[in-house]
Amino acid sequence: MIRLQNKLDFNYGNIKIFSGSSHPGLAQEVAEYLGVSLARRELVKFPNDNIFVRLEESVRGKDVYIINTASAPVNDNIMETLIFCDACRRGSAARITVVMPYMPYGRSDKKDQPRVPITARLMADLIQTAGADRYITVDLHAGQIQGFFSIPGDEVSSFHLLSEYLLEKKLENATIVTNDLGFAKKGRNYAATLDMPLAFMEKRRTSNDAKSEILSIIGDVNDRDVVIVDDEISTGGSLMNTLKAVKDNGARDIYVVCTHGIFVGPALERLKAQPFKEIITTNTVPQMHAKSMLPNLTVLSIGPLIGEVMARVHDGRSVGEMWNE
Amino acid sequence: MIRLQNKLDFNYGNIKIFSGSSHPGLAQEVAEYLGVSLARRELVKFPNDNIFVRLEESVRGKDVYIINTASAPVNDNIMETLIFCDACRRGSAARITVVMPYMPYGRSDKKDQPRVPITARLMADLIQTAGADRYITVDLHAGQIQGFFSIPGDEVSSFHLLSEYLLEKKLENATIVTNDLGFAKKGRNYAATLDMPLAFMEKRRTSNDAKSEILSIIGDVNDRDVVIVDDEISTGGSLMNTLKAVKDNGARDIYVVCTHGIFVGPALERLKAQPFKEIITTNTVPQMHAKSMLPNLTVLSIGPLIGEVMARVHDGRSVGEMWNE
Amino acid sequence: MIRLQNKLDFNYGNIKIFSGSSHPGLAQEVAEYLGVSLARRELVKFPNDNIFVRLEESVRGKDVYIINTASAPVNDNIMETLIFCDACRRGSAARITVVMPYMPYGRSDKKDQPRVPITARLMADLIQTAGADRYITVDLHAGQIQGFFSIPGDEVSSFHLLSEYLLEKKLENATIVTNDLGFAKKGRNYAATLDMPLAFMEKRRTSNDAKSEILSIIGDVNDRDVVIVDDEISTGGSLMNTLKAVKDNGARDIYVVCTHGIFVGPALERLKAQPFKEIITTNTVPQMHAKSMLPNLTVLSIGPLIGEVMARVHDGRSVGEMWNE
Amino acid sequence: MIRLQNKLDFNYGNIKIFSGSSHPGLAQEVAEYLGVSLARRELVKFPNDNIFVRLEESVRGKDVYIINTASAPVNDNIMETLIFCDACRRGSAARITVVMPYMPYGRSDKKDQPRVPITARLMADLIQTAGADRYITVDLHAGQIQGFFSIPGDEVSSFHLLSEYLLEKKLENATIVTNDLGFAKKGRNYAATLDMPLAFMEKRRTSNDAKSEILSIIGDVNDRDVVIVDDEISTGGSLMNTLKAVKDNGARDIYVVCTHGIFVGPALERLKAQPFKEIITTNTVPQMHAKSMLPNLTVLSIGPLIGEVMARVHDGRSVGEMWNE
Amino acid sequence: MIRLQNKLDFNYGNIKIFSGSSHPGLAQEVAEYLGVSLARRELVKFPNDNIFVRLEESVRGKDVYIINTASAPVNDNIMETLIFCDACRRGSAARITVVMPYMPYGRSDKKDQPRVPITARLMADLIQTAGADRYITVDLHAGQIQGFFSIPGDEVSSFHLLSEYLLEKKLENATIVTNDLGFAKKGRNYAATLDMPLAFMEKRRTSNDAKSEILSIIGDVNDRDVVIVDDEISTGGSLMNTLKAVKDNGARDIYVVCTHGIFVGPALERLKAQPFKEIITTNTVPQMHAKSMLPNLTVLSIGPLIGEVMARVHDGRSVGEMWNE
Amino acid sequence: MIRLQNKLDFNYGNIKIFSGSSHPGLAQEVAEYLGVSLARRELVKFPNDNIFVRLEESVRGKDVYIINTASAPVNDNIMETLIFCDACRRGSAARITVVMPYMPYGRSDKKDQPRVPITARLMADLIQTAGADRYITVDLHAGQIQGFFSIPGDEVSSFHLLSEYLLEKKLENATIVTNDLGFAKKGRNYAATLDMPLAFMEKRRTSNDAKSEILSIIGDVNDRDVVIVDDEISTGGSLMNTLKAVKDNGARDIYVVCTHGIFVGPALERLKAQPFKEIITTNTVPQMHAKSMLPNLTVLSIGPLIGEVMARVHDGRSVGEMWNE
Repeated sequence: MIRLQNKLDFNYGNIKIFSGSSHPGLAQEVAEYLGVSLARRELVKFPNDNIFVRLEESVRGKDVYIINTASAPVNDNIMETLIFCDACRRGSAARITVVMPYMPYGRSDKKDQPRVPITARLMADLIQTAGADRYITVDLHAGQIQGFFSIPGDEVSSFHLLSEYLLEKKLENATIVTNDLGFAKKGRNYAATLDMPLAFMEKRRTSNDAKSEILSIIGDVNDRDVVIVDDEISTGGSLMNTLKAVKDNGARDIYVVCTHGIFVGPALERLKAQPFKEIITTNTVPQMHAKSMLPNLTVLSIGPLIGEVMARVHDGRSVGEMWNE
Repeated sequence: MIRLQNKLDFNYGNIKIFSGSSHPGLAQEVAEYLGVSLARRELVKFPNDNIFVRLEESVRGKDVYIINTASAPVNDNIMETLIFCDACRRGSAARITVVMPYMPYGRSDKKDQPRVPITARLMADLIQTAGADRYITVDLHAGQIQGFFSIPGDEVSSFHLLSEYLLEKKLENATIVTNDLGFAKKGRNYAATLDMPLAFMEKRRTSNDAKSEILSIIGDVNDRDVVIVDDEISTGGSLMNTLKAVKDNGARDIYVVCTHGIFVGPALERLKAQPFKEIITTNTVPQMHAKSMLPNLTVLSIGPLIGEVMARVHDGRSVGEMWNE
Repeated sequence: MIRLQNKLDFNYGNIKIFSGSSHPGLAQEVAEYLGVSLARRELVKFPNDNIFVRLEESVRGKDVYIINTASAPVNDNIMETLIFCDACRRGSAARITVVMPYMPYGRSDKKDQPRVPITARLMADLIQTAGADRYITVDLHAGQIQGFFSIPGDEVSSFHLLSEYLLEKKLENATIVTNDLGFAKKGRNYAATLDMPLAFMEKRRTSNDAKSEILSIIGDVNDRDVVIVDDEISTGGSLMNTLKAVKDNGARDIYVVCTHGIFVGPALERLKAQPFKEIITTNTVPQMHAKSMLPNLTVLSIGPLIGEVMARVHDGRSVGEMWNE
Repeated sequence: MIRLQNKLDFNYGNIKIFSGSSHPGLAQEVAEYLGVSLARRELVKFPNDNIFVRLEESVRGKDVYIINTASAPVNDNIMETLIFCDACRRGSAARITVVMPYMPYGRSDKKDQPRVPITARLMADLIQTAGADRYITVDLHAGQIQGFFSIPGDEVSSFHLLSEYLLEKKLENATIVTNDLGFAKKGRNYAATLDMPLAFMEKRRTSNDAKSEILSIIGDVNDRDVVIVDDEISTGGSLMNTLKAVKDNGARDIYVVCTHGIFVGPALERLKAQPFKEIITTNTVPQMHAKSMLPNLTVLSIGPLIGEVMARVHDGRSVGEMWNE
Repeated sequence: MIRLQNKLDFNYGNIKIFSGSSHPGLAQEVAEYLGVSLARRELVKFPNDNIFVRLEESVRGKDVYIINTASAPVNDNIMETLIFCDACRRGSAARITVVMPYMPYGRSDKKDQPRVPITARLMADLIQTAGADRYITVDLHAGQIQGFFSIPGDEVSSFHLLSEYLLEKKLENATIVTNDLGFAKKGRNYAATLDMPLAFMEKRRTSNDAKSEILSIIGDVNDRDVVIVDDEISTGGSLMNTLKAVKDNGARDIYVVCTHGIFVGPALERLKAQPFKEIITTNTVPQMHAKSMLPNLTVLSIGPLIGEVMARVHDGRSVGEMWNE
Repeated sequence: MIRLQNKLDFNYGNIKIFSGSSHPGLAQEVAEYLGVSLARRELVKFPNDNIFVRLEESVRGKDVYIINTASAPVNDNIMETLIFCDACRRGSAARITVVMPYMPYGRSDKKDQPRVPITARLMADLIQTAGADRYITVDLHAGQIQGFFSIPGDEVSSFHLLSEYLLEKKLENATIVTNDLGFAKKGRNYAATLDMPLAFMEKRRTSNDAKSEILSIIGDVNDRDVVIVDDEISTGGSLMNTLKAVKDNGARDIYVVCTHGIFVGPALERLKAQPFKEIITTNTVPQMHAKSMLPNLTVLSIGPLIGEVMARVHDGRSVGEMWNE
């Protein structure tokens, strides 16, 4: 038997965390969690709409994290992230991790009709092409999007954060309702953890008129509180449908839970006008404006989770153990 | 204004169709649909378990299709397909299309726990590495698996084939029941096309004992016929659960519909012992043995659909138009 | 001696030309030049800022051209182009050519300071990653950007178009002045073709104050007409400097010639207020608004040149012969 | 002159060694040599023949070795290895080394007839595609197979192990006979090291009947002991030929030496029935069954050699120095 | 059953054949065989040693062949070939085939000692990187070098050409002697085809002095004519050894046969001074000078074979059929 | 807030510096600057013109630098560098940096006419293909060539070295003259730093005779000393033109400054015959011969700059800070 040399775990260099322009508040929160300062950088959008990035600190041999989310303007934020990667790569970073809490184009994840793109795969390819070595994100629209990447990555789940918040409410006589049939399996996880029954919103087009739809709730919500769950609220259109359907079926208090509170277009006006008991989301995108509009909006910060994952990725410690897995 | 030269559509060379060893009957059916003969090849498995392929016809400048499905022995069939691709590539084929009606490892399509592979993505990478230019498959476990490929491909849907067969049965008072919550959205498509209500099988572990499960049907099946739908039946385990649950909830006749009737392990014995009215599947894998075991098994041939897609791929005509899209 | 089979030139399939949303007028002009109709497509920007493309005609086995320029909003137009490529690739196009008359990020073509990106190279990589087989563009900021691409491409020169227009003016006693020392060599080409002397604008920072600059004209412009040449006018800042310098040095009539009249930020207001005799540019970006603002703006259409190059690319005929090379 | 910072050698992280299912005994031997425990993992072959791997220890930032050989079932073992790599890559291993003592498909290493694959190259590509950073193997069928890999690797030679064992036998009046002309050069190395003369087995088809062969020994074996050398014994077919030929030419005691004692099909029965003095091989594949069948089989363990190479690879110390090179 | 559209074989465009500077005579021979003219090109080596290539004919959409062999100056010829490929690729050739009859660095095909390159694999990678789609070569040093390429290729064998020439000599009482043990298997092919016995040259270092060697002939050459076979003669050093050994063993007339008569350094002087009956080789490299030096040199032209293979590659017809395979 | 583990900067292993055969003197200078010895290697050019490299020290887990410049014989030096990379990669180096002070083929950096290569891009691709992880070079012909590389690199500027040398001369009444209009912008940098006026050499073909040229100086050199600046002097042809033109325009003392004094073909004879006051260059290529020919040649060593950059690259410290950037 021989003795191997004593080894430390693999060392990717000291940490450097850059914030893109999309969500500096979250980046700051993460940096504070990690006890480090955000690295300095110059971000310019020239009058000709071209984005320019200059790193004001050396990244040579460093373990670099670029925190940028895909809130609007989405394509500017994507390009900024890619350009950031290129600057870090050419600046000789030892490792580059793109931290994009809300990954865009998640709903464009398959060809469900002819001659459409799979933009979520394209996103993965672009990020790799720009030089990223890893990614960190929160709750992909479909878990399979992990497989669109060749580089390793960590998908952080907001499930524990959100379900624990709900557990503390000690709701009784409540039912989980999935806002979309594609979320049925994740809805079941909420139902199981919260020990509630499960119901589904089904939307079906009527045969004679393509515009008119039949909305039905499969499962029982009558005289019960309802927790509508989904991964993302965008314009709030389907949520309005579900709200109507559960109300028509006799529901009492309505809670809404989602990871990504995107709230675009008419969303905030719509939600404000409706009698939701509480809308619970996270700050994977900035929520300042939404909070000022919706008094019953609860925003749970995803920052500590992202920070903890980054610490473990940087240190080479297990991320899975965060969930006792 | 100038005049462009008259052009034909792009020409990938004459067609050559090879059958792997997994499903010669389907390959033959496709070849007959297309009015061509299968190309000759030598397939050997040496005593040392190494597979050898020799093409007995020149593929130089030809549009080659390799028809091989992923029935057991799965890994032999995968390797055979990859080796086939290599032989065609080095034999200077103009284009190579892998036709794999049942794509293996579809359920390994995301990291739903730490430190597991995404083997479905690996499969896509292996097929591309071996030299395939395109793929054709039937009903992927998740549509997102399309995005695991960089090469273009055509996912043939068995939905029209199966739903038209069901329509002709003119079932009344029947309910669609999805065997798995991940199939909820596709279950809705069956329900809408057949104009039936929808119900879901939910399986939940009880808190005190990891082995014991609570099975429930969400939606109404009492005193109704039931059509259980899923993409694949493997050991039949979940189907047994669903069967029990719908029976307990008062269901009458039970139909089962799935694209991929894999029927492995105890499946055929289990299914044979149960009072299913009819089990309907396709021949994406060989069904000879299953048909001899299950008198109430109906196998719809996927051959003409695959043949038609291949004809359109070869000719450069729209595949989407097959579905009026 | 043997006889080879009779061959046609390589055939990339019938032509399909799509217009992105940035410059439909130019796409229309090109289509008319080629005697074909633009292919139908659906372009949507969803409320969540995600772009969606659906091709409304089959591209299977077709020779596809996507015409999209990089006018503002630049990053939206880039992403739209990439998504378009992905849709065409997955739709089984035989060949995809990105026609981007004005290529963005051209000035970010080298690391002239530490820790900056080379975004022009990134652009080339992104276009290739998205599936483009070729590109066509007009007057890159630096010819070396061709080398950023691995795929073949055609850089169309506007030099003949612009210089012939100037020749017809039969200017006498005129001097070519380059607006930027990086354009010196191309300025010499104008001077040689028009048989005019050459002068240069030099800008130098004074040692004691970083903001103040010394502007000087190297070469003789006194009592002469002046043709200021550059590849691009963006905000018009340097042009204002050159204008002042040549005026201070006794110049008479001032003409301005550039390929890309981007005219962003304060450009149109600035230019309008100055006594330029004529500003000559092309429509590599839309010029409708600029034309309404600047009465002395002449826009030469690049459409026929692009159309002719596309015809030759499609037919497999020499592009170099267009310039007798 | 400046002073560089003090550096350690490159550090790939702590070691993690996983055993695949093909040869746990060898993996255990290696682990013992290195004084570490094998890492825990779950290996399942589902009833549908799909292989599943789950790493039960974190590999994040670790230097991972996957020990798996290509004994039967060969294609299962290949796929298992590839899936293992994917799990380690996605689990963020710092470096992944595939340790495959017997590399399959080695005889499929060139196109010696039209339209056949080069499966050994395909193997190298598959291993790289799955995410391996390095490989370790023993005695490739042809040294050129090293060049099929782009990733670095270490081909361990069993020559010293086997030749030193033979030296200790102090054979006199013995001749080395190569079992195959492709092994002539390596046979010469045995002859030179053992200071024995060399002879060759030649097999030639007779002109009138493709089935009948003329076997001849080139060189002198009459009244001499014979050591038949080859890289691999598979079915033992050629060995039977060589045995007959040397016997016919008057040989006395017959020894057989090979690296890879695969012994498939009729091999063990054949060998058992023949008067070999001793058959010497290594455990690059499991030899338990062969040892129980063949009393005159000597198995030299390759474990310590592989362990020593792994130690040096892990520590960044020279492997070449093991052979004083 | 449906009817596929009538198809021609795949069409790679009209043929264009360029000759590099290494072997214009062979290129001319091939062009004549194919009944076409060589395409015009400008080849310059600037005073600063940089090579410049300009194609004087359009290659857009053409099936291009670049004929260049690796005679001295080898590295100039390699770089010229690579630069040629780049010019063709950027000039939009439809397909590029590198025709390199003598592939350099063939003997650097494995790591037979630590810390050496595998330059033959590097060559394959360079050729692919430069844009070649295929290669054609003659008699690689090892067949496995085919596997160093990912692109398809055709290795032309000179075996039939050379063996038929020998057959016509009707040699009696002759023995094939392989010049190198690595050529043993190919030597056997000569022996079998010519129906001659086989012998081997073995070279072994003596233990006490690294410089002194023992040369022996294994097999019988006494009072027989001898045909020494090898793939390549370079300096002729081993050939001198073999010559001495067969003479010492009583051989009569000595013939030498090899594919690649490189004849470098002292080769021609050495060979001229020795009593070879005939030296037979091909013109995979230029042989003008060798022919003027060696009166008993017979050069068989490889031109028609290469031309025939190119015709079949261009037309998409089987190459294997040339050898009735 | 959590505490990250203490980390060192990323560690690429101990340094190993190899010198190629082109410029051992510079490599020695660099090694001395860094206080290390050059690593031992065997470099052979075989009689058949094939280059062979063997590393005589282990590079396993080392941070390797290969110093080789592109002086004549250029293509041999390129191939030697690529082969060196391959040996290091297969020898398991942790990181490979190609240090090529004078990068060849820089003038072949764009298609300025049809059907020519972009050999500078090809160079970048070849270096990456051979396994280099980084490059270090001095003053590329165009900064954009950085963008030809995907791997990170450091372009060392000789500007400070040369301009500080000139500053110390305290020239008065001197003018900077750019030898080529492509160098205008860099000429301006010299003029600004030295606080001198700027003039340009313009060369124009006359219309009636392609051979005759009009040479003119734009800017004032009459009765002034002149400093002619360029990146490279090759044959000295344009320098002769500029010399004549400034002399004709009344210049007094003539200095010449360039980074790369290649001096090929007639250069040294030409320069020797002319009344240059001083020619100032660096040793990016060996200057021994030039110094013996030209008494007024000043060679500033680039060695310390390269050494300092290598130290910072190795240590993971900022290179940009060398220039206070």
